[in-house]
Amino acid sequence: MDTTESIESKKIRLEDIKSPADLRSLEVTELEIIAGDLRDTIINTVSKTGGHLAPSLGVVELTLALHYVFNTPKDKLVWDVGHQVYAHKLLTGRQEQFPTLRQYKGLSGFPKFKESVYDAFETGHSSTSISAALGMTCAKVLKNDAGKVVAIIGDGSMTAGIAFEALNQAGHQDKDLIVILNDNEMSISENVGAMSSFLSRQLTSRTVRHLRKHISTRLKELHGVGDRFLNVLKKSEENIKSFFTPAMLFEAFKFYYIGPISGHELDVLIPTLENIRDNVDGPVLVHVITQKGKGYEHAEKNPGNYHGLGPFDVKTGIPHTSAGSISYTEVFGKTMCNIAKKNQDLVAISAAMPAGTGLSHFAQEFPDRFFDVGIAEQHAVTFAAGLAAEGIQPVVAIYSSFFQRALDQVIHDVCIPGLPVTLAIDRGGVVGDDGPTHHGVFDISFLRFIPNITYMAPKDENELQHMLFTAISLSGPAAIRYPRGAGEDVDMDTELVNLEIGKAELLREGKDILLLPIGNRVYPAMRAAKGLEKLGIDAAVINPRFIKPLDKDLLCEWAEKTGRVLTVEDNAEHGGFGSLVLELLSTNKLFGVKTHLLGYPDHFIEHGPQKTLWKNSKLDSPSIINAAMELMKE
Amino acid sequence: MDTTESIESKKIRLEDIKSPADLRSLEVTELEIIAGDLRDTIINTVSKTGGHLAPSLGVVELTLALHYVFNTPKDKLVWDVGHQVYAHKLLTGRQEQFPTLRQYKGLSGFPKFKESVYDAFETGHSSTSISAALGMTCAKVLKNDAGKVVAIIGDGSMTAGIAFEALNQAGHQDKDLIVILNDNEMSISENVGAMSSFLSRQLTSRTVRHLRKHISTRLKELHGVGDRFLNVLKKSEENIKSFFTPAMLFEAFKFYYIGPISGHELDVLIPTLENIRDNVDGPVLVHVITQKGKGYEHAEKNPGNYHGLGPFDVKTGIPHTSAGSISYTEVFGKTMCNIAKKNQDLVAISAAMPAGTGLSHFAQEFPDRFFDVGIAEQHAVTFAAGLAAEGIQPVVAIYSSFFQRALDQVIHDVCIPGLPVTLAIDRGGVVGDDGPTHHGVFDISFLRFIPNITYMAPKDENELQHMLFTAISLSGPAAIRYPRGAGEDVDMDTELVNLEIGKAELLREGKDILLLPIGNRVYPAMRAAKGLEKLGIDAAVINPRFIKPLDKDLLCEWAEKTGRVLTVEDNAEHGGFGSLVLELLSTNKLFGVKTHLLGYPDHFIEHGPQKTLWKNSKLDSPSIINAAMELMKE
Repeated sequence: MDTTESIESKKIRLEDIKSPADLRSLEVTELEIIAGDLRDTIINTVSKTGGHLAPSLGVVELTLALHYVFNTPKDKLVWDVGHQVYAHKLLTGRQEQFPTLRQYKGLSGFPKFKESVYDAFETGHSSTSISAALGMTCAKVLKNDAGKVVAIIGDGSMTAGIAFEALNQAGHQDKDLIVILNDNEMSISENVGAMSSFLSRQLTSRTVRHLRKHISTRLKELHGVGDRFLNVLKKSEENIKSFFTPAMLFEAFKFYYIGPISGHELDVLIPTLENIRDNVDGPVLVHVITQKGKGYEHAEKNPGNYHGLGPFDVKTGIPHTSAGSISYTEVFGKTMCNIAKKNQDLVAISAAMPAGTGLSHFAQEFPDRFFDVGIAEQHAVTFAAGLAAEGIQPVVAIYSSFFQRALDQVIHDVCIPGLPVTLAIDRGGVVGDDGPTHHGVFDISFLRFIPNITYMAPKDENELQHMLFTAISLSGPAAIRYPRGAGEDVDMDTELVNLEIGKAELLREGKDILLLPIGNRVYPAMRAAKGLEKLGIDAAVINPRFIKPLDKDLLCEWAEKTGRVLTVEDNAEHGGFGSLVLELLSTNKLFGVKTHLLGYPDHFIEHGPQKTLWKNSKLDSPSIINAAMELMKE
Repeated sequence: MDTTESIESKKIRLEDIKSPADLRSLEVTELEIIAGDLRDTIINTVSKTGGHLAPSLGVVELTLALHYVFNTPKDKLVWDVGHQVYAHKLLTGRQEQFPTLRQYKGLSGFPKFKESVYDAFETGHSSTSISAALGMTCAKVLKNDAGKVVAIIGDGSMTAGIAFEALNQAGHQDKDLIVILNDNEMSISENVGAMSSFLSRQLTSRTVRHLRKHISTRLKELHGVGDRFLNVLKKSEENIKSFFTPAMLFEAFKFYYIGPISGHELDVLIPTLENIRDNVDGPVLVHVITQKGKGYEHAEKNPGNYHGLGPFDVKTGIPHTSAGSISYTEVFGKTMCNIAKKNQDLVAISAAMPAGTGLSHFAQEFPDRFFDVGIAEQHAVTFAAGLAAEGIQPVVAIYSSFFQRALDQVIHDVCIPGLPVTLAIDRGGVVGDDGPTHHGVFDISFLRFIPNITYMAPKDENELQHMLFTAISLSGPAAIRYPRGAGEDVDMDTELVNLEIGKAELLREGKDILLLPIGNRVYPAMRAAKGLEKLGIDAAVINPRFIKPLDKDLLCEWAEKTGRVLTVEDNAEHGGFGSLVLELLSTNKLFGVKTHLLGYPDHFIEHGPQKTLWKNSKLDSPSIINAAMELMKE
C-alpha cells in the first residue's frame, strides 16, 4: 500500500491502461506505478469479494512484464490453474467489471474465452498449461503463424503427472515453447515431493557424494586431473549443488533453462523475456522466483491463509467470518482423528490439500500416518491401493472435481482387485464461487457404475462420521461424497457405529409420492414434505444413504405404494442418482411408477453462491414442492 | 531354442521348480537351464494361445534373478503393466495351468490376487507399479515388516504422469523402495519423448554446450582450473554424455541410481540385486538393459510385431491369420488418411499406440500432423485442446479403457471450453483375451453425462467413416466409440457425408416392441428382430447413432407406439445407454412404457473371446430374442 503513496505525483495510472498495448510505450518506473495500482485494486476488491489473493499478488510484475514484452493477444499466455489472473484481467480491459469478481453473473476467477480474447486458454485445475501451450505452439507451426506461446506454471503444479507428460513431449517436439516456472516455493500449502526440494536447491548429500565419486573416477580415467578437481569440489559443495540444479532437470527434458531470476524486478524480467522472445529457439524454461502475497504484509507473512479466502478487513487482514455451523470437512477431519486413536492401521492421504480436506490436525497428530503426495490424484489412489494390499486402511481425501483425475486408478487399481481403500469425496455438489471447473457435480455419474464399490452420501454431518467409520471397516472399496460448507447443525453422536450396508432410512411415510433425495438434499426434501403436507399432499421421504448398493427392497416398496418418485441430487441429472433409481425401477418391473429427476441440467453450472445455484437449478425446497406438485398431476 | 539342446545333459529342469524356493539352492549354470526351459515353454504356449511374447521373453533372467535374490512371496514383486509375467507365473506354481493362458476360464495374462500369493499387485494398465510399490513399502514400515518391495517398470511406462508422481513422492518419502527400470529402448512401439532419448544416452549437443559453458564459468570462479578441465571436456564429449545421464535424472528424484547393467546375465544381475538387498537403504533405481523378444530370433528381429500377437508358427514365426473382414480400427485409420488429404487442419494424436489405433499409415503419410505423445493420455487430450484452441482439428485416438485416464481433461480442457476435439474411442466394449483391465465397457457411462459433447457409436464400419467425417466437421467436442475387431463386412461408401446431428435411423418398423441397440449391437438386434418375427413378434429397430444428443422425437415416437423398449449395449448396464433411454422416457413422461436394459452386469467381466463374453452376458441375438420375449409377457 506504501507504493501508492510514494508515487502519488506520477502521471500514468492503472485506469489509463485500456489494453496491454498501452503498457508497451511506458518506462519501467511507470510500470512500477501500475504494479502498485494493480496491487491496491486486487487487495481492495478481494477484500470485498473474496478470492485467490496471494497467488495474484505474487505475479503482478510478471504479468506486466509478459504483456509488455509479448504481443498479446496475438502471442498467447496460458495461465496454469488460472487463479492468479487478477492482474491479467485488470490489464486486459476488465477494470470496470473487476468489482464483480467471482460474484454471481460477474467476472470469473479464472480465464474464460467468453470474457476476453486475451484469455488464450481456460484453466481451473492445475498443471494443464504446458500441454495446452504445446498444442498451441504446434498449431502455430502448422499454420505458419509466428506468434509465441507462453505457459506460466507454479512449482506446485509441477508435481502433477500431466505436467511431466507435457515436458516430456515438449522436449521431443523441440518447438518454440516458453515455460515460465513461477517458483514461490509453495503451491497452496507447503510443497512436497522430491522435485520440490530439487527446485529449492537442496540436493541430498548422497547425491553430491555419488556425483563426486563419479566425477573423480571419470576424470582419473581421462587425464589424471581428477584429484585436483575433486579437491576443488570438496571445498565447494554448495557450488556443486547450485551448479547441477535445477537446470539439469529441465535440460534433461531438452529445455533450455534460464534462471533463477527475481519475479518482482521488472528491470530483470523484461530484458530476460525480451532476450528469449528474440534470440532463443526451441523449448525454454525461465525459472522465476516470486513471493506469494507480495506487497500485502499479512499475505506475505502467511501466504497459506491468504491463498484463497473470503472477504476480509484490508487493514488488519482479518477475514469477516460468519460464525457458522461446523462444516462437513471439519467433521471429516475430526472423525479421522477419533478413529485413528483406536485404529493403528488407519492412514490419510491428501493430494496437496491437507487444510482444504480437513486433514491438518490428523497430519499433526499422526505424522507417520499422513501422506501428502503433492498435486497427484492418480498416484494418491494407486499409492492407497498399495497400502491396502499390505493390510493398511487408507482414506484418500480429494475434492470431487479433482477425483476426475483418478477415475482409472479407482477402477483399475482399487475396484478390479477389490482393495479396501476409502475415497473421501469432499466438495460433492456445487462449490460456489470457483465455478464450473471446481463444481463437484459429476462424481455420482462417474463412480456409481463401478463394480465392487460401496458408495455413500450422508444427509448430515452426524451421518458422515458414521459413514466414515463404516467405510473404513469394510473389506472392499468404499466412497463417501459430502458437500462443501456447513452441516445441518445437528447433534453429534459420541459413539461411532457401523451402518448396515445397503440399508436406507425411511424418514417419513406418505401415500402420495416418494421423495428420494440423496446426501445434502435430504433436509430440503424433508422441508418440502412438510410444505406439501400443507398443500394436502402426503409425501414419503427416504434417505437412501447408499448410492451403492441401493436399498432395493425399501425403495421399491415405497415406489410401489406411492406410484410416484421424485429424486433430488446435488449432481448432474444425467447418469446420476435419479438415473440409478430409474434403472432400479426398470429392473424390478415397476413400470407404472411416475418419475421425475431433479439434478443439474445438461450444461456447465456457472459460479455463484451455493444457495443461488441450488435455487436456480431447482434443487431447493420450494423447487422440490413445485416438482412434486407437477408430478402429482400425472 | 538352441539353449535346450545344448544343456540336454543337465539335471535340473523347469518342471522341478514348484515354487521360487526351489531356485534358491541352484547354481547360476542351473538357473541358465531354467531360463532356457522358460523360454521354450513361453514360446510354445504363446504360439498356441497368443499373448505378450516379446515382453515376457525379455525378462526371463530378470524374473529368475528377482525370485532367486528376494524372499518371495514375503518380499513383493510389482510388475508394471503385468503382461511380462509369464516366466513369473511358470516359476510360482502355475506350470500346469500355463497352457490355459488367456483362454476363457484359464490363467489371466496379467498378475491376479486370486491366482497366486506371488502376485503381489494386480496390473494391466501401465505405469502404476511405483505408486503401488511405494504404498506397499510404506505399509511395511508402518507394520514393522522388514520385507522388501520391488517394482519392475519398463522405460515406456516411465512416460506416464503417474510414474513421475510416484517417483516424486518416493524420493520425498525416502523409504526402502527398489525400482527396476527394465529398459528395452521401446515400449510397445518406438518410444517417444525427451526422457526416452535421455535414457538412450543422447543428450542434445545444446545441453552439452550449455553444460560446458556452465562448468567453465563455475570453475574459473573457483580456482582458475576451468580452462584445462574445459579442454578435457572438449575432447571427450561422449564421456560427458554418458557421465551425466541417466543417473542424474533419478538422482534428481533422490533415488540412488545403479546401472545400466545387462538384464540377461545372471552373474551380473544376481550380485547386483543381492548388494541392493543387503546394503542399500532408501529408494534405489536399478537400470537394467534387456532385449525384447530375447531368445526367439523372429521376436528379436522385430519385437514390435511380437509384442502381443495371436497364435503363430514357432518355426517360421508367422502368425496364423484368419483372413477376416476389415476391422473398425483399420477403417478409422484409412478414413483419417482420406480426410487428411483434403483437410490440411486435421491432425492425429496417439498415446504410444500408433499401430494399435490404426494410425501407422497416417503417421507415415502426414508426419508433421501426427503426434505420438507417449503413454500420456491426460496430456494427449489437453494437448489436443491446445491445438483446437488455435484452429487445428485434432483427433485423439485412445482405447476406451485408457480413456479412463483422461476423464478430467475431457471435462475440464475440452468440454467446459467447448473446444472442437474429436475423441476416437477404440476398443469400446469387451476386448477379449486381455480381460477386465482392458475391456472398454464403461466409456458410455463415464462420458455421456458431460455437457457439450456430441457422442456417436456406429452400427458398422461404413457408418464409422461418416461419423468420423461428421465429428471433425463440428465446432465443438465430439466422441466416437467403436469396438475391437472386424466390422460387419458392409460396402463402404466412397463419398463421406455429414450425418445430421442427433438423428437416429429407423431400421425396421414394428408394433410390438422397440429394440434400441447401440453401436455393434445393432446388427445382432436386427437379426433378433428377424428371429422374433418368426415367433410372431413384430419388433421395431432403431439405430440411435447418437448417444448424445439422443434423437428424442424418433425414440419417443416408437417407444410410445410399441409400449416396450429393449436396449442393448456393449457397455455396463449401470449408467450406460439404456440408463440414458430411461432418463429420456422419464423426462418425456412416457411412464407406461415397459423397459429392459441389456448390458454388462455389476461385476468385472473376465477374459475370453468376445463372442463368448457377449453370449454369456446376454448381448447376442438369441439373448436379445429371449429378453424381448420376456418383456412381451409384461
